[in-house]
Amino acid sequence: MSSERTDQAVSAPFAARVSVEQVEEGLDLAPRFDADGLIPCVTTATASGEVLMLGYMNDEALRRTIATGEAHYWSRSRQCLWHKGATSGLVQQVVELRIDDDQDAVWLRVEVAGSGASCHVGYRSCFYRSVELGSSSGEPARLVFTESEKIFDPQDIYGDAPNPTQL
Amino acid sequence: MSSERTDQAVSAPFAARVSVEQVEEGLDLAPRFDADGLIPCVTTATASGEVLMLGYMNDEALRRTIATGEAHYWSRSRQCLWHKGATSGLVQQVVELRIDDDQDAVWLRVEVAGSGASCHVGYRSCFYRSVELGSSSGEPARLVFTESEKIFDPQDIYGDAPNPTQL
Repeated sequence: MSSERTDQAVSAPFAARVSVEQVEEGLDLAPRFDADGLIPCVTTATASGEVLMLGYMNDEALRRTIATGEAHYWSRSRQCLWHKGATSGLVQQVVELRIDDDQDAVWLRVEVAGSGASCHVGYRSCFYRSVELGSSSGEPARLVFTESEKIFDPQDIYGDAPNPTQL
Repeated sequence: MSSERTDQAVSAPFAARVSVEQVEEGLDLAPRFDADGLIPCVTTATASGEVLMLGYMNDEALRRTIATGEAHYWSRSRQCLWHKGATSGLVQQVVELRIDDDQDAVWLRVEVAGSGASCHVGYRSCFYRSVELGSSSGEPARLVFTESEKIFDPQDIYGDAPNPTQL
């Protein structure tokens, strides 16, 4: 990390998408943002390989993540740039950033500061429940918790901030 | 896997979303599909933890995945249900299916049949390139290949089928 790293750090603009060969086989970073200007981002824990969350980035969030080495997202519920951990202290340090074949998805491998949690409900991973497989009988699928207890109490961290979950 | 498993197998309808508490803390599977009727799905390799792909499921794809234990997606490029591996033989056997806190993302842990590849370009993972971090100098970010060679030749598997990558 160079001395240029500040809260304003942002990488250069991305390459234009000119051909399938360039996008799939080339060395230009030429991401494809969707109609809302967003690209989905899978974030995994470097040590365990566990998927911590699925977030979204806009152009600025991706460029700030590249420049600073800390995960930035676009908050769809709050409609603002989101430096992950700015409120909770649970900053995600990026060990590796990958892009997929057609460059419409990002994968971050991260180390999480502090308690290591990444989920606003208080669990380590947002994916703290599994679905029972093999159900085709007519009974609705049920969930099973894969984390037995929360790592932090959301009330302590977020107070009265609105819950981002939308019905 | 019961004897009920056939190509027509599909799980029961999902629960309605009635409260944040139910969605975040409950045992009902009540997924949230987006305006296009889709939910994003992260697929990782059970053994390595590597992210293989980011796909999308509609209601039917998710219910078929639950019922059969084999990954089904919605192909956005072909606009059809997609039983992964039906053309290539590279079926993804689901070891675990998880849902995230607000139930708008799915995580599949899978074992891939045959050569183990999941990427239409021929690589094992769709995420076969990393992005150089720390660039805030004005130079565009560059990519580095993380897989040195393809596992299969797409021409052998897909022939003249249209490439799904869109510019």
